[in-house]
Amino acid sequence: MLLGEKGVGYELVRESPWLRRDEFLDMNPAGQTPVMVDAVRGILLIDSMAICEYLEETVEKAAMIHGTAANRAEIRRLVTWFDTHFFHDVTGPLLHERMVKRLAHRVAPDGKALREAMKAAVSHLDYTDYLLDHRQWLGGATLSLADLAAASQISIADYLGGIDWKGHDQTARWYQGLKSRPSFRPLLAERMELVAPPAHYDNLDF
Amino acid sequence: MLLGEKGVGYELVRESPWLRRDEFLDMNPAGQTPVMVDAVRGILLIDSMAICEYLEETVEKAAMIHGTAANRAEIRRLVTWFDTHFFHDVTGPLLHERMVKRLAHRVAPDGKALREAMKAAVSHLDYTDYLLDHRQWLGGATLSLADLAAASQISIADYLGGIDWKGHDQTARWYQGLKSRPSFRPLLAERMELVAPPAHYDNLDF
Repeated sequence: MLLGEKGVGYELVRESPWLRRDEFLDMNPAGQTPVMVDAVRGILLIDSMAICEYLEETVEKAAMIHGTAANRAEIRRLVTWFDTHFFHDVTGPLLHERMVKRLAHRVAPDGKALREAMKAAVSHLDYTDYLLDHRQWLGGATLSLADLAAASQISIADYLGGIDWKGHDQTARWYQGLKSRPSFRPLLAERMELVAPPAHYDNLDF
Repeated sequence: MLLGEKGVGYELVRESPWLRRDEFLDMNPAGQTPVMVDAVRGILLIDSMAICEYLEETVEKAAMIHGTAANRAEIRRLVTWFDTHFFHDVTGPLLHERMVKRLAHRVAPDGKALREAMKAAVSHLDYTDYLLDHRQWLGGATLSLADLAAASQISIADYLGGIDWKGHDQTARWYQGLKSRPSFRPLLAERMELVAPPAHYDNLDF
């Protein structure tokens, strides 16, 4: 999404980190996506936040960590909030139960784990509602990396049927705005193997 | 440690995040340390990496995320490696088994979890040995935030008896160098309630 906002061309390469392929571990011993290869400059970049900071430093267009040092700290706090806490509570468990278990282990999801992830999603959306009551965008007065990080996590959770939009009007309106950005289209067009999203998923007016 | 290197005065405040105190959750809804309050500027900072980036941006002395954009990405990758992966595999389980269980739950540690954490520590130190075979410091040719993040995690693991230094000469030499920095003294002087460190812990020559 950040590459899209900055107008940098890219090609996505599918990687299933849970397979722990040797060639992938040679690139990133942590065994995690995302990894970005800049073949022209001969640069290998690892870790979502490190990649985003790199893009902020090297591409001037569409600054997404902006404002005063305190604003920038608030944007980074929220990126970690979504990349780490939202992922740990919501996206990670949903992916494990609804995608990895099906693709890799051919077993059914655990209903209790799914319910807990969906309950956690409600708390997280209560928090984004609260933030959006006080600010135009999650990180402050303008669009920032906090919005991109949040929308990316939420889109995966929504794809996996983990988001109940009822009662979250603030966040729903904000998410609708992000969904209609050109940078978001490629994400909405992607499909997981065997797992279909709910009908509202890529509807821009849901 | 970064505040020490930069010569910024600070006062530590003890917080036990597992108690989830309301006053602390009001400051940081994620319920995690560290949180930094700059009372003079009226600024509340949350999240280790966001705080470090803030200090890099506001205090010129002792730059710790330096070099080209690619170097800076490598430093940030390694900070995440230690803050997230080393913590998840080693420091977190050791703290839970040896400190939280004793202080909060008054139960004995789980031997299997301890052995797994210590085994993970060996792999991590194999990796730092490998990095130090190719570089003077973990993040490149000069001291960086990667070294501070690694040494901070390793010091806690070492305090809790989780590090077997045998066969890790490269990392041991590097750690000895960091231990003798003035910024590291306050960390080595700290003691946990009820849990004593091994004899070598604050020995600068171990």
